[in-house]
Amino acid sequence: MAGSTYGNIFKITTWGESHGKALGVVVDGCPAGLELNEDDIQKFLNRRKPGQSKYTTQRKEDDKVEILSGVFEGKTTGTPISMIVKNKDHHSADYSDIASYYRPGHADYTFDAKYGFRDYRGGGRSSGRETIGRVAAGAIASKILEKLGIEMLTYSKSIGNVEIDYKKFNKDEIEKNPVYMPDSDAAKAAEKILGEKMAEMDSCGGIIECIVNNMPAGIGEPVFDKLDANISKAIMSIGAIKGIEIGDGFEVAKMSGSTDNDGFSIENGVISKTSNHAGGILGGMSDGSSIVVRAAVKPTPSIARTQQTINKSGENIDINIKGRHDPIIVPRAVVVVESMVAVTLVDMLFTGMTSKLDKIIDFYK
Amino acid sequence: MAGSTYGNIFKITTWGESHGKALGVVVDGCPAGLELNEDDIQKFLNRRKPGQSKYTTQRKEDDKVEILSGVFEGKTTGTPISMIVKNKDHHSADYSDIASYYRPGHADYTFDAKYGFRDYRGGGRSSGRETIGRVAAGAIASKILEKLGIEMLTYSKSIGNVEIDYKKFNKDEIEKNPVYMPDSDAAKAAEKILGEKMAEMDSCGGIIECIVNNMPAGIGEPVFDKLDANISKAIMSIGAIKGIEIGDGFEVAKMSGSTDNDGFSIENGVISKTSNHAGGILGGMSDGSSIVVRAAVKPTPSIARTQQTINKSGENIDINIKGRHDPIIVPRAVVVVESMVAVTLVDMLFTGMTSKLDKIIDFYK
Amino acid sequence: MAGSTYGNIFKITTWGESHGKALGVVVDGCPAGLELNEDDIQKFLNRRKPGQSKYTTQRKEDDKVEILSGVFEGKTTGTPISMIVKNKDHHSADYSDIASYYRPGHADYTFDAKYGFRDYRGGGRSSGRETIGRVAAGAIASKILEKLGIEMLTYSKSIGNVEIDYKKFNKDEIEKNPVYMPDSDAAKAAEKILGEKMAEMDSCGGIIECIVNNMPAGIGEPVFDKLDANISKAIMSIGAIKGIEIGDGFEVAKMSGSTDNDGFSIENGVISKTSNHAGGILGGMSDGSSIVVRAAVKPTPSIARTQQTINKSGENIDINIKGRHDPIIVPRAVVVVESMVAVTLVDMLFTGMTSKLDKIIDFYK
Amino acid sequence: MAGSTYGNIFKITTWGESHGKALGVVVDGCPAGLELNEDDIQKFLNRRKPGQSKYTTQRKEDDKVEILSGVFEGKTTGTPISMIVKNKDHHSADYSDIASYYRPGHADYTFDAKYGFRDYRGGGRSSGRETIGRVAAGAIASKILEKLGIEMLTYSKSIGNVEIDYKKFNKDEIEKNPVYMPDSDAAKAAEKILGEKMAEMDSCGGIIECIVNNMPAGIGEPVFDKLDANISKAIMSIGAIKGIEIGDGFEVAKMSGSTDNDGFSIENGVISKTSNHAGGILGGMSDGSSIVVRAAVKPTPSIARTQQTINKSGENIDINIKGRHDPIIVPRAVVVVESMVAVTLVDMLFTGMTSKLDKIIDFYK
Repeated sequence: MAGSTYGNIFKITTWGESHGKALGVVVDGCPAGLELNEDDIQKFLNRRKPGQSKYTTQRKEDDKVEILSGVFEGKTTGTPISMIVKNKDHHSADYSDIASYYRPGHADYTFDAKYGFRDYRGGGRSSGRETIGRVAAGAIASKILEKLGIEMLTYSKSIGNVEIDYKKFNKDEIEKNPVYMPDSDAAKAAEKILGEKMAEMDSCGGIIECIVNNMPAGIGEPVFDKLDANISKAIMSIGAIKGIEIGDGFEVAKMSGSTDNDGFSIENGVISKTSNHAGGILGGMSDGSSIVVRAAVKPTPSIARTQQTINKSGENIDINIKGRHDPIIVPRAVVVVESMVAVTLVDMLFTGMTSKLDKIIDFYK
Repeated sequence: MAGSTYGNIFKITTWGESHGKALGVVVDGCPAGLELNEDDIQKFLNRRKPGQSKYTTQRKEDDKVEILSGVFEGKTTGTPISMIVKNKDHHSADYSDIASYYRPGHADYTFDAKYGFRDYRGGGRSSGRETIGRVAAGAIASKILEKLGIEMLTYSKSIGNVEIDYKKFNKDEIEKNPVYMPDSDAAKAAEKILGEKMAEMDSCGGIIECIVNNMPAGIGEPVFDKLDANISKAIMSIGAIKGIEIGDGFEVAKMSGSTDNDGFSIENGVISKTSNHAGGILGGMSDGSSIVVRAAVKPTPSIARTQQTINKSGENIDINIKGRHDPIIVPRAVVVVESMVAVTLVDMLFTGMTSKLDKIIDFYK
Repeated sequence: MAGSTYGNIFKITTWGESHGKALGVVVDGCPAGLELNEDDIQKFLNRRKPGQSKYTTQRKEDDKVEILSGVFEGKTTGTPISMIVKNKDHHSADYSDIASYYRPGHADYTFDAKYGFRDYRGGGRSSGRETIGRVAAGAIASKILEKLGIEMLTYSKSIGNVEIDYKKFNKDEIEKNPVYMPDSDAAKAAEKILGEKMAEMDSCGGIIECIVNNMPAGIGEPVFDKLDANISKAIMSIGAIKGIEIGDGFEVAKMSGSTDNDGFSIENGVISKTSNHAGGILGGMSDGSSIVVRAAVKPTPSIARTQQTINKSGENIDINIKGRHDPIIVPRAVVVVESMVAVTLVDMLFTGMTSKLDKIIDFYK
Repeated sequence: MAGSTYGNIFKITTWGESHGKALGVVVDGCPAGLELNEDDIQKFLNRRKPGQSKYTTQRKEDDKVEILSGVFEGKTTGTPISMIVKNKDHHSADYSDIASYYRPGHADYTFDAKYGFRDYRGGGRSSGRETIGRVAAGAIASKILEKLGIEMLTYSKSIGNVEIDYKKFNKDEIEKNPVYMPDSDAAKAAEKILGEKMAEMDSCGGIIECIVNNMPAGIGEPVFDKLDANISKAIMSIGAIKGIEIGDGFEVAKMSGSTDNDGFSIENGVISKTSNHAGGILGGMSDGSSIVVRAAVKPTPSIARTQQTINKSGENIDINIKGRHDPIIVPRAVVVVESMVAVTLVDMLFTGMTSKLDKIIDFYK
């Protein structure tokens, strides 16, 4: 299992620790002929880069990506694309305490339980920096989706108890505010809350929503590799995610079949649904409507307040974590969620090419 | 990908359609030496069998399992265990209409989009009967967990807007009421609602909760094969599930770090947490606390009310679905959720055996 | 790993023991729309059936296959195809001795070493009957290849020291003689040798050759999933195979580059090679020439002569194995080799559909 | 499939082209606690480095490895180990011709057939430099095997028609001669042949043999993931390999069962075999004897002699390949074969830990 590889045909393998020499990803199974350069990747990485606003860690990293293989004369060759981002601002000294105790809400204890040993600097492999490889891979997957006419939109739906108002939804707002909300009023309210949390040496959670438009119908494999099952794994594998919803999600628990079922209708030969409670997925396959996915993100576990924990000598202690931490994970995780969905969609689209014999015969004619 | 195989080391492959000759599963990677007979499997299958109560389809099936391989002299041999359940009560006639149109909330349309062709009888492969293979495999996984001292408890947490009261929680109640609730008052209220839904030719959703006790700490693989990521895939792959939560789930979106973080404490050398908001999983690995998982189940899409849809001739039509349908999926899905979690836990426990070099050296001494 | 599943997109999972209730296979990832019935499978199974000639075990088995799922109205649906063959002639009594000792050349000892326990009846899972599932799957793969215009020819190239003469090669002869040789003179000589071996209570090995024509160029994945690498795994996974060659095979060790290299030439736009030392595979991808594979098959290890071994009480003993055994494995293994190559080719052809971005874009237009 | 990842639990992913910026590998699934530094890897890489003798390409590369992740305070952490080797001596100019035509014996044509496009510089991904990642991973696998007391010995068994004499076998000789032969007389004769081939602007093939001692019995998975099946895939995936043998290999085709079968004997409780025709593997599982594997290596396809081929304009042409090429691949491939076997053994040993229930229960006690 190993755990650092995801995908079957479009396959990504990430590596690297918070305070190691570098982090990176190998993307294997990218088809030949895609125009690709480092700017395509950098644009995605910049969306999760530290230091973008006062709500993100002040660690100094350009997160500059370098493509080491798989691209020739500006196009992918079909062979593995290796990408690397070097760590610059290690500041290992900041993290020396962590070696001796287990931070609440972090993976320190479970890493020790599993491996008997861990790279404690900045959380090591369980750091948010681990997502650099995911996002670099997501940038490639997104380019492929674009070529297939598929569009994605991902944003913060809520931060703490501030939720966006869909009547004010404006996708152009998303990249204009530091919290990646498509509603500028909600964004302002969210910023206010974040300011309060910072003053209180506390942190705050939220919800990320991802919408996929123009997905062809029939993508996803019945039974275990359902499209929603693979999306759920992909997103839940991001640190700090504690819940996933497709379409109406937990609301369905209180709904009647007569309300939850989406009717079908046809006009000029085009099939559509009369509503989209299902979030674009029926029986684990895309139904041609927008795919709607939501992820619940927990508050940053690194807070400066005094917390109760134990040390490796087996003593109960109180700790105050120092260091540079974001009061919220949500805004920087938006592009990570989008990346994981993009990688999953590409993998399932590729898998979906062998469903019908006649299409395979045509392909090899 | 193919889609009907799940797991890496403990691997299950299911097959079969609602109205085919039989359904079954091949369990590969079960260790040798587990005492196993057909009663062990049957007990699990009986929990999802039709006809248990007035709230389940009246289709007549014993769902009697037969073990065809992998067991010798009462014990598993380490080779694949093939199990089969024959379909008896086909009633194909009931489903003949379905061939011509797409039922709302079902996978009829997406199956056609994917394969250009489908076994329309009773939903074919997307029928709830597909879960027979999962549950038979889950029975084996559960026996293995039991041998490792790990306990599971799964039940209906809510049905429609009736939720259990944890103050009245009594696990012995679960198997005493037809809705598998651990609170007899809630069960009665839920039955009342189900009666109403049936009268209204409608259906109702709910939430299933699964608790795992005594799970060793450190199980799960960092990054993509996190324990919660794999559990999410496993559960979301069950038809009708639209949401997943681990621990506090979507509640974390509104929480502060200071509330959400679970402290650690130690007494007499035993490490525990001061709370369990994380639901027993930190950084994708078990932390030794109870694992808490919830799944939102949509209302049965098969309802007798008039619904709007289209037929294969491309016309908008109104339909009334006939046949024998459950007004709720939740109670019968309880054992399916438990099975998928059990299979995932066994797979991850097996994977976890190679984390530490010194343990491997000891093993091969 | 588990070990009883093979293939990535076209995936087969076999199960069953020599003297269990049945044996079978689940084929997952077969595209929808392939006309398929039990006769298609039976034709393949009959080529490996016992009792065909005096050189095969006299165990009485029809090896009659039943398709249990995945086929509807005469065509595959895209969902898993489960096939089963019931064991009739168990004769468990014949094998009771084997429980106590380890037969030379068999897997008795290694099964015990691995599992601490084994189904000793007729070799259990390591019996040649295990290949029934492979051949049933191979029949489906072959039908797919046929639809793509790809042809396979598999036969005995040598038996003991009798080798076919390519000048006398006649493919119509293959199914006319009990040793599946494409040269009737060689077949007669081989039969003579088999008669002698039977008289001597001994057995004999040989070589199987498989030729694939009309394979499109460019199939196979560079690096680890090379076409020849996967074919080698597929064939070496058949019990009794001890060597594999592609094209000139071991002869290349003594050749010069100037002799071994195949030139390219083009006529009327058709590319061909001036020779085929490479056996149709260059850099792990098909080159459009005939694929040529050979497998060395060891003599049947079950012989009636006295042999030295040990029993489970830890004593050195001499044994004489009773029972009904073939003096040679080669003829019945011909269809098994063909099946494993066919499954591999289909899997790699399906994988090969995502190599070029423009073809993917066309596919989803 | 993608193709650049190998292994299930101990998993390696290689990347890089001959004339790209760098080559490398990610090793995922290495247990925590292995002492590891760059020297451990470098020792292995030096065995395949160019410029070691007059029989290897004079391309100037140190092949200096850098470990980028997964090692902390001198020990592996259990997280992915990323290793990189930068290309220094590109000399792209040497290879400009290759862009326009297909070299005989190379993958130029098949790469174009598959991807419609290729990095033609030095063979791109199909260059022998691709094996750098394999060898770096093999170095880690070898260290793990060493900790388990398992020893490997790999050498050139033959070069052209010069074969080693087992009576003169001296393992200390292997690293003393440029052709890695364990017989100094044969080595001298082989060098003479290589000199002749170079003078003739030709090249020469050979056979590599790999011996594994102290392998525990019972490793390997019955049916498809047999130890010999996986070893065959691993070795056949190395460019230039055209044949594989286990134990007596193709010789078994002419043997009798009475000769080929290895008897068992026991002395002081220690089980051994009276011979080792099987090459240490029975029924796909190790039997405790030495594992014996042989691989046939074709002559270097890059030769300076005039050869017939076609260009991309569709013309028949004669070519003379320039550049710096080895007259033989065998000596530098010795460590590549050893690496692939080592990786396979580690993966199968790890897989083998879940065969017996009682051992699993013990593990988790």
